[in-house]
Amino acid sequence: MIKAGIIGATGYAGAELVRILMGHPSVEIKWYGSRSYIDKKYADVYRNMFEIVEDTCLDDNIEELAKQVDVIFTATPQGFLGSVLNEKILSETKVIDLSADYRIKDVATYEKWYKIEHKSPQFIEEAVYGLCEINREKVKNARLVANPGCYTTCSILTAYPLVKEGLIDANTLIVDAKSGTSGAGRGAKVNNLFCEVNENMKAYGVATHRHTPEIEEQLGYAAGKEITISFTPHLVPMNRGILATEYASLVKKADGSYPTKEEIRAAYEKYYKNEKFVRVLEDGVCPETKWVEGSNYVDVNFVVDERTGRVIMMGALDNLVKGAAGQAVQNMNLLFGLKESEGLELVPMFP
Amino acid sequence: MIKAGIIGATGYAGAELVRILMGHPSVEIKWYGSRSYIDKKYADVYRNMFEIVEDTCLDDNIEELAKQVDVIFTATPQGFLGSVLNEKILSETKVIDLSADYRIKDVATYEKWYKIEHKSPQFIEEAVYGLCEINREKVKNARLVANPGCYTTCSILTAYPLVKEGLIDANTLIVDAKSGTSGAGRGAKVNNLFCEVNENMKAYGVATHRHTPEIEEQLGYAAGKEITISFTPHLVPMNRGILATEYASLVKKADGSYPTKEEIRAAYEKYYKNEKFVRVLEDGVCPETKWVEGSNYVDVNFVVDERTGRVIMMGALDNLVKGAAGQAVQNMNLLFGLKESEGLELVPMFP
Amino acid sequence: MIKAGIIGATGYAGAELVRILMGHPSVEIKWYGSRSYIDKKYADVYRNMFEIVEDTCLDDNIEELAKQVDVIFTATPQGFLGSVLNEKILSETKVIDLSADYRIKDVATYEKWYKIEHKSPQFIEEAVYGLCEINREKVKNARLVANPGCYTTCSILTAYPLVKEGLIDANTLIVDAKSGTSGAGRGAKVNNLFCEVNENMKAYGVATHRHTPEIEEQLGYAAGKEITISFTPHLVPMNRGILATEYASLVKKADGSYPTKEEIRAAYEKYYKNEKFVRVLEDGVCPETKWVEGSNYVDVNFVVDERTGRVIMMGALDNLVKGAAGQAVQNMNLLFGLKESEGLELVPMFP
Amino acid sequence: MIKAGIIGATGYAGAELVRILMGHPSVEIKWYGSRSYIDKKYADVYRNMFEIVEDTCLDDNIEELAKQVDVIFTATPQGFLGSVLNEKILSETKVIDLSADYRIKDVATYEKWYKIEHKSPQFIEEAVYGLCEINREKVKNARLVANPGCYTTCSILTAYPLVKEGLIDANTLIVDAKSGTSGAGRGAKVNNLFCEVNENMKAYGVATHRHTPEIEEQLGYAAGKEITISFTPHLVPMNRGILATEYASLVKKADGSYPTKEEIRAAYEKYYKNEKFVRVLEDGVCPETKWVEGSNYVDVNFVVDERTGRVIMMGALDNLVKGAAGQAVQNMNLLFGLKESEGLELVPMFP
Repeated sequence: MIKAGIIGATGYAGAELVRILMGHPSVEIKWYGSRSYIDKKYADVYRNMFEIVEDTCLDDNIEELAKQVDVIFTATPQGFLGSVLNEKILSETKVIDLSADYRIKDVATYEKWYKIEHKSPQFIEEAVYGLCEINREKVKNARLVANPGCYTTCSILTAYPLVKEGLIDANTLIVDAKSGTSGAGRGAKVNNLFCEVNENMKAYGVATHRHTPEIEEQLGYAAGKEITISFTPHLVPMNRGILATEYASLVKKADGSYPTKEEIRAAYEKYYKNEKFVRVLEDGVCPETKWVEGSNYVDVNFVVDERTGRVIMMGALDNLVKGAAGQAVQNMNLLFGLKESEGLELVPMFP
Repeated sequence: MIKAGIIGATGYAGAELVRILMGHPSVEIKWYGSRSYIDKKYADVYRNMFEIVEDTCLDDNIEELAKQVDVIFTATPQGFLGSVLNEKILSETKVIDLSADYRIKDVATYEKWYKIEHKSPQFIEEAVYGLCEINREKVKNARLVANPGCYTTCSILTAYPLVKEGLIDANTLIVDAKSGTSGAGRGAKVNNLFCEVNENMKAYGVATHRHTPEIEEQLGYAAGKEITISFTPHLVPMNRGILATEYASLVKKADGSYPTKEEIRAAYEKYYKNEKFVRVLEDGVCPETKWVEGSNYVDVNFVVDERTGRVIMMGALDNLVKGAAGQAVQNMNLLFGLKESEGLELVPMFP
Repeated sequence: MIKAGIIGATGYAGAELVRILMGHPSVEIKWYGSRSYIDKKYADVYRNMFEIVEDTCLDDNIEELAKQVDVIFTATPQGFLGSVLNEKILSETKVIDLSADYRIKDVATYEKWYKIEHKSPQFIEEAVYGLCEINREKVKNARLVANPGCYTTCSILTAYPLVKEGLIDANTLIVDAKSGTSGAGRGAKVNNLFCEVNENMKAYGVATHRHTPEIEEQLGYAAGKEITISFTPHLVPMNRGILATEYASLVKKADGSYPTKEEIRAAYEKYYKNEKFVRVLEDGVCPETKWVEGSNYVDVNFVVDERTGRVIMMGALDNLVKGAAGQAVQNMNLLFGLKESEGLELVPMFP
Repeated sequence: MIKAGIIGATGYAGAELVRILMGHPSVEIKWYGSRSYIDKKYADVYRNMFEIVEDTCLDDNIEELAKQVDVIFTATPQGFLGSVLNEKILSETKVIDLSADYRIKDVATYEKWYKIEHKSPQFIEEAVYGLCEINREKVKNARLVANPGCYTTCSILTAYPLVKEGLIDANTLIVDAKSGTSGAGRGAKVNNLFCEVNENMKAYGVATHRHTPEIEEQLGYAAGKEITISFTPHLVPMNRGILATEYASLVKKADGSYPTKEEIRAAYEKYYKNEKFVRVLEDGVCPETKWVEGSNYVDVNFVVDERTGRVIMMGALDNLVKGAAGQAVQNMNLLFGLKESEGLELVPMFP
């Protein structure tokens, strides 16, 4: 059995990690770290776990934890892992970071968008960006995995094949993303109260959201050049789910015509045909967040709009699963040579 | 592998059966019966099943189906199974009926509350009421299992120990139950439209709901006499979950005092200490439907109110799991000598 | 124009007072008191009021306020008004208290249920309990009105005619009440976050909720004796609305028969026929919270259940309107000799 | 008093018209037309109207109706008014059409997008597009007003000043719109059931939604040329509200720089400073649908993104008020020389 420790086990992403790992046949959780709930029974913080998890919350002493487990998941605020990581930890255990600390290769970009000084930039280079469908081979040999953000996973996977194949002009990409409220975390804020979110919808972080440079970096690799995109997140009155609606101008072919629907579809099939967790929907079917809820799937599809010369791409995932904990487990499976889908064959729950 | 067929596979309860059986290691579904969607791909009706279920919906020919499978689940409207069941079917296969046709022993009571003529009352006697925690041994040898209703499972299990131990006067029992909207089914009715249910709450079927005689019959067995109760269902703007709040007068002891909190708790422990799927919560913790969502658990607890001489009992379950499909699978496990919890170790999903 | 001041203008009840008074032709708000937001523009706290309210939040200096206005509304936590009220204030202005400080006549009962020492019990006797439909005449001449609680308004008005007419045994009364989340206030608590409330339902404060003695006192006056009842509140995933489902044993008539449906209805008609804000629904129609949303109506109805000898009564209101701010304005209208419904002819909003 | 008749009074838009007109001091409704509920009491179809509306639903005989009233509102499916309108009706009464039949000037465009043959195209030319803020003067003298669509009102008003002033390239405009479910109407469809919409989000009608040519036509007038845009509607789990997030490339000035934030704001102020129902929010505040719920306001704002050379515009309105019935009443006020805001000073309801 792989021994796992979680730092930040009482946030929503941490709790989802617990839920998924409870059903994973090859892992046992040895450490439920929670700065806020030290010495409290985990099941008193998440009562769904009553009679399932008997453990008590521990602190976030990552050095001590590193000695005891094979893998550490850090589901912590930005800056935490950056401020405590060291070579000794990485020599003793694998680390999968669900925060943004090691996602962005350029430390200046990180510090500009996150407004935090990076305390251990020396590990950025070796960190592997854990978007399994794209970086699978690199993840297998990593010591430190930067688990992608929820919006970014959805945004990138939805557009990746078309960027990679040069079918769209990546600099025209506009990502309009909508997220359930669990993405805002479990902190007690007026803005996230039921009465403020229910029957309401809004954009936030317009032109300034921190997932923007992460999308730009990864899609830039696919495009083979630096790109600049627009990304707008929105808050939706539901618990889980992200829907990304993405717009881009099609690149005309040599004969002046636009790529056809069939050519676009072929690009998606090329990259995702063998990907268990990316489902390219049938023609005419728009992704819905409910159809992937509780599962590790991303559903994607597209519409070619010849009137405007644009393609509209759509992707849906569960922000706590493929957007966070599920992808972290997928990365863990790769790190330990397990079947990539082990413990992740979760059937979406409907309704 | 046990071969299973489902008639009514495209209702919400049928779809939940599919979800659960997909994760069951000893079962394969051979027949997705759906009168409404014959010849349509199942995954086109429930797109969460895209790339998971490849089958096409078949008809509801139960005689043909009986020849092919080891167990038939009927997740059908009231009256369907009653109108088609025969000895030959029962000699070929096990039948687990999620409708009410074989729940009530007295056919006149059934016909009065359901306003349907029972077409095959000859099987009522042998049918076993499949509330596993109470009828476990009988279920094991049954040919025909009457899977309990969603409200009834919650209502009965919440009060059962106190009725059985004579701690409450069963005729004073009042069950005020609240249900998510999936209990109303997938039929296209104005009353169940999003805009009619959202931001709304109401009682319905007051003093006339069909689950009333079922609760009375089962708790009457526990009480050792016929009883009459009040049952009021309510519609709540959520997808899943039933919460039952139950009120009853405590029976005074010989010395004129009421049973203590400790005595009440001891009664719950007596019946549920070893029941995996019934969780008696810690003192002071009220059950919440969200803590059991997606799982086969029933959470129960109580408050003794000395001011009024009453005990307030509370129970919560997921109406589609323990209230329907999960309990049906639990019954199937018993019928086939499997571990009772096989395929049912679903961790509740939160949030 | 009547000059009004609000202390606690930035809670949900205070904000609803602002909304209603904005449409009241005879009132102008001169003081938006808010301890939390002093010197902040009111419309920055409630952006629905942008370009409607230009004022800035002031403090809660009630002595200064009393000099400037004709009526003060205190939409404040329990204990505030009790700790600051004095004779001088009451000699200068009318006070309508939306908190519980002056609702309960017996100070010991108040202190026991609220766990607060009452600092100015000398005003309890003169305070008038402002349930307009019952205490209309007394309100007209009051200096200090104790505006009823949200649950209590609904619970009392739903049962009042039957208690008053002796048709039910008031000591058998069980009130199972369900409330939208705005009743929990705008404080930043984890329990009230969207993800904790959405898709969830629970009871709370079982057998200990503070509205219990208020209901008992008022219905006790109607019964002509002290009574003890059961009251259980529940939290529902919606913004607004309270639904009370109430159970009581019918009192048999001299001939041993139960009161008929017609006799029960006659009792409701007797008290409510001329009440604009209490709508006795037609036979067979259950109240729904959505049908009164945003309005000052209470919808009530009942079902006689001869099987159990009980009547099930149901009432629905908007907790922020008839359950708080609307009723406060109704009281204000009475205090100042205006038409009782002035500014309150709000048509319920559906959907 | 102006006598009004409504055809289609039992759809959600029709019901909202009734709600608003109930509070309008200068109008009385004489005809509640409803093909589906003829001879049924209106308050039995919408129980919020119990004891408020005593009338019974009538048929949709517009010729008879035209003789009796001063104004007819048609809140009917596409094609209805087109198939019945004639000169006699228009000579007897004013007509405000909430359907799309007279919104689009080019009949071929209408027939292509709506897939309906237009039966009375002879009235298209004289019909006035009733977006009051833009066509106020023309509306005043109209016989036939084409009330704009919900998405279109929001989409157009959000972008109008920047298109009109030439600050953005209108052909780069992308409108990503999100709507509450009341926009889908009260028809009984599986897709609109509570359990299908709740906890779910999706795009629909991608690149084919019928509001697209309406936006293109109106913004084309502002741009002074034909334009082509992208419009994508989404379904959100809430009852009311539309949020439009709009993206467009800024037009560089002669010196190669982009328009500044101040210049953009000045354009909004130029057109909306004196518009009561359009609120240009303060810098940094994103519109939220809840802040306008139940009111006739449109809240708009924008963010200039120099990184991408784009401006992100946002607009929010209540689809049933400013997006349908409220705007219809605003048009009616103009038609009859009333104060434009009469009966429309509805304060948004929060929460």
